[in-house]
Amino acid sequence: MSHLRLKERRREDYGYIKEYRTRWSDNDMYDHMNNSVYNFLFDSVVNTYLIEECGLHPPTSSQYGLVVHSHADFFGSIAFPAVADLALRVNKLGKSSVTYEIGLFEQGIQEVKSVGEIIHVFVDRETGRPAANGMNESLKEGLLKLVMEQKRSKL
Amino acid sequence: MSHLRLKERRREDYGYIKEYRTRWSDNDMYDHMNNSVYNFLFDSVVNTYLIEECGLHPPTSSQYGLVVHSHADFFGSIAFPAVADLALRVNKLGKSSVTYEIGLFEQGIQEVKSVGEIIHVFVDRETGRPAANGMNESLKEGLLKLVMEQKRSKL
Amino acid sequence: MSHLRLKERRREDYGYIKEYRTRWSDNDMYDHMNNSVYNFLFDSVVNTYLIEECGLHPPTSSQYGLVVHSHADFFGSIAFPAVADLALRVNKLGKSSVTYEIGLFEQGIQEVKSVGEIIHVFVDRETGRPAANGMNESLKEGLLKLVMEQKRSKL
Amino acid sequence: MSHLRLKERRREDYGYIKEYRTRWSDNDMYDHMNNSVYNFLFDSVVNTYLIEECGLHPPTSSQYGLVVHSHADFFGSIAFPAVADLALRVNKLGKSSVTYEIGLFEQGIQEVKSVGEIIHVFVDRETGRPAANGMNESLKEGLLKLVMEQKRSKL
Repeated sequence: MSHLRLKERRREDYGYIKEYRTRWSDNDMYDHMNNSVYNFLFDSVVNTYLIEECGLHPPTSSQYGLVVHSHADFFGSIAFPAVADLALRVNKLGKSSVTYEIGLFEQGIQEVKSVGEIIHVFVDRETGRPAANGMNESLKEGLLKLVMEQKRSKL
Repeated sequence: MSHLRLKERRREDYGYIKEYRTRWSDNDMYDHMNNSVYNFLFDSVVNTYLIEECGLHPPTSSQYGLVVHSHADFFGSIAFPAVADLALRVNKLGKSSVTYEIGLFEQGIQEVKSVGEIIHVFVDRETGRPAANGMNESLKEGLLKLVMEQKRSKL
Repeated sequence: MSHLRLKERRREDYGYIKEYRTRWSDNDMYDHMNNSVYNFLFDSVVNTYLIEECGLHPPTSSQYGLVVHSHADFFGSIAFPAVADLALRVNKLGKSSVTYEIGLFEQGIQEVKSVGEIIHVFVDRETGRPAANGMNESLKEGLLKLVMEQKRSKL
Repeated sequence: MSHLRLKERRREDYGYIKEYRTRWSDNDMYDHMNNSVYNFLFDSVVNTYLIEECGLHPPTSSQYGLVVHSHADFFGSIAFPAVADLALRVNKLGKSSVTYEIGLFEQGIQEVKSVGEIIHVFVDRETGRPAANGMNESLKEGLLKLVMEQKRSKL
């Protein structure tokens, strides 16, 4: 999607939202949250969803998600000590890969501050190679549930 | 206080509590939150209090707090994606310095995971030297309010 | 550039290289550097160049760079305690904006681990709006010098 | 040791030194490295030593070091993009625990910026409890070697 259309994203475009309080160290010298920190929060909401809704258990699961690409567009700034809402949707669900989209909002403000995508390829822990038969059932089911949720949220 | 007595700290020993959701990057290879990250959270609740209750405005305030000492004891671990409660009290309030104590709890669990102290000396932004007449009124009032609060909370 | 061609990047495609030792906290639970940390290192080499070669002084300069977009492709992993080489080039130099490309290498290994781009728009500190007359002379000169350097490095 | 004597620490009081380039995100709004970041660097030099000189392999070793206490005193500031020297010594070597001392220096400057201690208790990965027969041989040997080194360095 174009920069202009991404800027129109609202909370109802997403199916899963978690709130994250910003930390003192998130701010840079210009008194707004460091752009790199957005990626930490994107990662966090993705992995929280995988753990809480898809049965992922990072220390032991036989598959895990390897990030092969990420990007982000920034429309506005947020600063400590604000609270951020991290909103998650699935844009593309393949056999062994998934493209997440994440929107970052500031509590009390409707406009989105940043929108990014992360692409995970699920690999076997043993080999570090993409899973031959694709991602396992609990991952697939959990991600499909999110696809359903984001459609409902939009109605 | 001794290690044993610190371990007895409970939420009601503190006058101010904020919740912080842990982040994916907080965990280390042993699947628990990196000990260094506790300091980030300690710093965050201290500065949130200074900004929200003591009139501190980091980019422009004429005084700011310089950390001269910090320490922490660790009693248990917490792991992503848990939510942490950061609890704050003032243990010593001097003319230009203050000793904060911070307790870190995991939501849903009574026992404290870690207790630490941070000592701030308030310095003039211009000189970087301790403020000749001590910390300003709004800081002092805000910190005294916390001292009152933690006494009340204990009753 | 395509994912495949980016994977061919070598140190000599870049005009400026700095080494960064990885930190314990950089690793995630899968025992490799967290993907979000790459962005911290990309940011760091960009800003080191701006400060050391372009006269930027973050606390006081009248202009500063606002990140409006970033992306990264990941080809391989690196893990603490390895040392990373961060290599910088300029892909596009506009009137008030610049597109940097950053390659991350591991010391002792020829293949690139990750390649990303960051787009800075230089804004006036006073207004937070893009500088009417574009970026100032010392920034432009410093960035042009890097364009020259990366051509020479390639010969 | 007293605050005053710690301030007298010099590089030759330590047996192992690694250099760490500071990162853009290390600086806080007051344009110096965030105090919490010192702990990240302390942790990093300790674990680099354990991995490189004591045979520790974090993802698989049967024992690992659990931090039970840490503290730090701050004497001066350092700011991005400076390079820091992290210097390590062992102050106390027990059966299953070790007290490290770390000094942080800025390259080109003799005076120490910060001195801290970290206490590790080595626990069995299986149980998370202190190792019954104490730390294993390769850890003990590696740490004793550092004790020897810091004595030699002082001569």
